[in-house]
Amino acid sequence: MPTPSDFDRLCVVLVSTRNPLNIGAAARAMSNLGFLRLRVVNPYEASFREARSAVGAAPLLAKAEQYSSVAESVADCSLVIGTTAAGNRELHHPLRLLKEAAPLVRTRLRAGGRVALLFGSEKRGLSNDDFSHCHWLMHIPTREEHTSMNLGQAVAVCLYELARNVPKTPNRTKAKTISKKAATAGELERITTMLIDALRASGYLGERSVAAKEEKIRRMVRRLELSSADAELWLGMLRQMLWKMKPSNSR
Amino acid sequence: MPTPSDFDRLCVVLVSTRNPLNIGAAARAMSNLGFLRLRVVNPYEASFREARSAVGAAPLLAKAEQYSSVAESVADCSLVIGTTAAGNRELHHPLRLLKEAAPLVRTRLRAGGRVALLFGSEKRGLSNDDFSHCHWLMHIPTREEHTSMNLGQAVAVCLYELARNVPKTPNRTKAKTISKKAATAGELERITTMLIDALRASGYLGERSVAAKEEKIRRMVRRLELSSADAELWLGMLRQMLWKMKPSNSR
Repeated sequence: MPTPSDFDRLCVVLVSTRNPLNIGAAARAMSNLGFLRLRVVNPYEASFREARSAVGAAPLLAKAEQYSSVAESVADCSLVIGTTAAGNRELHHPLRLLKEAAPLVRTRLRAGGRVALLFGSEKRGLSNDDFSHCHWLMHIPTREEHTSMNLGQAVAVCLYELARNVPKTPNRTKAKTISKKAATAGELERITTMLIDALRASGYLGERSVAAKEEKIRRMVRRLELSSADAELWLGMLRQMLWKMKPSNSR
Repeated sequence: MPTPSDFDRLCVVLVSTRNPLNIGAAARAMSNLGFLRLRVVNPYEASFREARSAVGAAPLLAKAEQYSSVAESVADCSLVIGTTAAGNRELHHPLRLLKEAAPLVRTRLRAGGRVALLFGSEKRGLSNDDFSHCHWLMHIPTREEHTSMNLGQAVAVCLYELARNVPKTPNRTKAKTISKKAATAGELERITTMLIDALRASGYLGERSVAAKEEKIRRMVRRLELSSADAELWLGMLRQMLWKMKPSNSR
């Protein structure tokens, strides 16, 4: 497994991006998912300046490196991967699905290599010239009817896949997950009894005990898979309703 | 494995979304990844109108369904999942990582159930009241320093994960394994309402509506994991008890 510190050797390279919102969105996804190295190649100057003020990713954008060619932007990387919607385009590179590509990227990062992940412009994607700097290409599987993804979303999905199997050091999720103690059979039986009493008091069940109907109720209570805490809650609710249904306690 | 046609039973529900660009981006990701059912709850009207003209997802947006409450928007769904950045918020629901949640969603879809995936507003996410309609919550693992994801990117990542292991060609060979049909959110909400009415009639809850207590009851009903048949049974039992507790019907 690569560690989050390996992520520091992955560069997201945005080539000729036009829309400042997209640069900002890509930066935000990077910041969310733990990849902090952004490189931009020939961005529209104004867009890049505007993007630098994007919400939530300012530190990352402030550190972004600017290049005037793809070649320079990937010079220190030992694995360069182009992203493409593929579509009907004729490709001269091996094309891998994102989920097949991710382990190869992680292996390279773990070995200490730098990896560049290239994303093209909103209109045209990467050019064949851009591709020529890549070792291979990867794509996110999409519907054939609609292959062109938004740039920020494509970056988010790619980085999510790369980080997907990397354990986070402090695992808040497990700590926070409510471990609920299952109700005991005794608790379930007390609920069953009180429910049957309440149903009898309400007229739902007849006055006389009918085994088949009581069994049905009993099975149903077991299907609820109650926690001990919820069992307590149900007992309280049923007790109150039962009390209320007694003739002497109604208004 | 679910087939792409199973995706038709998953609804993306955007609750109180403000920014038309985000509605458009969510719709585009859905269209890319093969999930075509969008529902919106209380969108800002102007935003929703503007979003309808978003590039690349017009057919999907034209078919989007609009609701005025979360309850109505998920009424036909048997599994309702809230998304959250978690952060430091105190949660009363089980919280699952996206990749652990995805197989549960696929299983439900494969069994023929409808699933709703709720996304909250850009500013505040989902409220506790919104959460109370959910069976459980899920989140995308992010850096602790930057947990808040862009809405469109969060939708893209969630749907990518759901579609990740689904082969593109329809694969109907594996038989459906419907054991028991899970209760829909509509059925659960009817039970919730009737239970709250019964608790009020019994004196367990005060006469006035107290949101926090009602949310607690609503969450508790979702934890029961009721089947549709058992939901029917509960409705009948509660209806009878409620009737009995009305002053005029006691002996």
